[in-house]
Amino acid sequence: ESRLPGFATHQVGVAGAVVDESSGKVLVVQDKNKTKNAWKFPGGLSDPGENIGVTAVREVFEETGVRSEFKSLLSIRQQHNHPGAFGMSDMYIICRLRPLTYNIDFCTQECLRCEWLHLSELALTDHTTPITSRVAKLLLHGLEEGFEHIDLAMEELPAVYSGMFYQLYHRKIPTA
Amino acid sequence: ESRLPGFATHQVGVAGAVVDESSGKVLVVQDKNKTKNAWKFPGGLSDPGENIGVTAVREVFEETGVRSEFKSLLSIRQQHNHPGAFGMSDMYIICRLRPLTYNIDFCTQECLRCEWLHLSELALTDHTTPITSRVAKLLLHGLEEGFEHIDLAMEELPAVYSGMFYQLYHRKIPTA
Repeated sequence: ESRLPGFATHQVGVAGAVVDESSGKVLVVQDKNKTKNAWKFPGGLSDPGENIGVTAVREVFEETGVRSEFKSLLSIRQQHNHPGAFGMSDMYIICRLRPLTYNIDFCTQECLRCEWLHLSELALTDHTTPITSRVAKLLLHGLEEGFEHIDLAMEELPAVYSGMFYQLYHRKIPTA
Repeated sequence: ESRLPGFATHQVGVAGAVVDESSGKVLVVQDKNKTKNAWKFPGGLSDPGENIGVTAVREVFEETGVRSEFKSLLSIRQQHNHPGAFGMSDMYIICRLRPLTYNIDFCTQECLRCEWLHLSELALTDHTTPITSRVAKLLLHGLEEGFEHIDLAMEELPAVYSGMFYQLYHRKIPTA
């Protein structure tokens, strides 16, 4: 993990899929300023120095008013030269969150609509983005068979040199 | 996935764990300029616009002379304020690669040693980094039970607006 000094090449965006296990519903929004009104998971850019899970929980609360806690990392997309990123590359990460509150009080500046939608409905509708549709199918599989089948678990490990902690994500290793 | 223009906050480093399934060995290096000679996976920083898998294959070849192909994404680490990154954050991604050649011809400027090491040995030794040790245990589990238990599979999807492709990584969804 040593390397030459580089420079920042990526912005990191994080979305939160808040899944209510008891109802099978997930929290989705429609952006206000988009031509096509597609359901998607709330999210946004990480602030400098902010952990992935913290961004997800913060953005979900800012957009929807729903409080949640981080559970796992589900999916990563890497994209280069996308519009609005001015030559940067983009790492877009979707997390699974658990709701702590259920009442929606969405940001009318950012969102046109915000709902708890059945995962089975989100997995089938055309009114969504390809990634959201894919992750809805993944979450539906997790809801039916157990989220351990789809999760990357997070663990904090101490950094050797600094005494700080870093976050490591990978599939849970079964204990023998 | 729409958002306000941001700025790049992360550098992306990629390591490649080249696993020879027939022998159960993995390709590891020891850095030349480190105080502690710890086995680790070869890797380095992504060039601007370079896909994760391409970085892994390129860095493995440059450091070890071994040619390989990308199979999956295994683990992600996020770290803030680490030395040598000058305030940037760091995303460090470990991929699983399959060897296409086996002959080692390592870069003597970067590496002190380079070997094919048994995964079971790498999983137990103290002469490694915490992340490498963890991923060795993960790979050992994959070797024994099937790599589908530890992999995030990659798929290329078309971007709606540009006709370009992006890479999406998540657990494979079983087809019903």
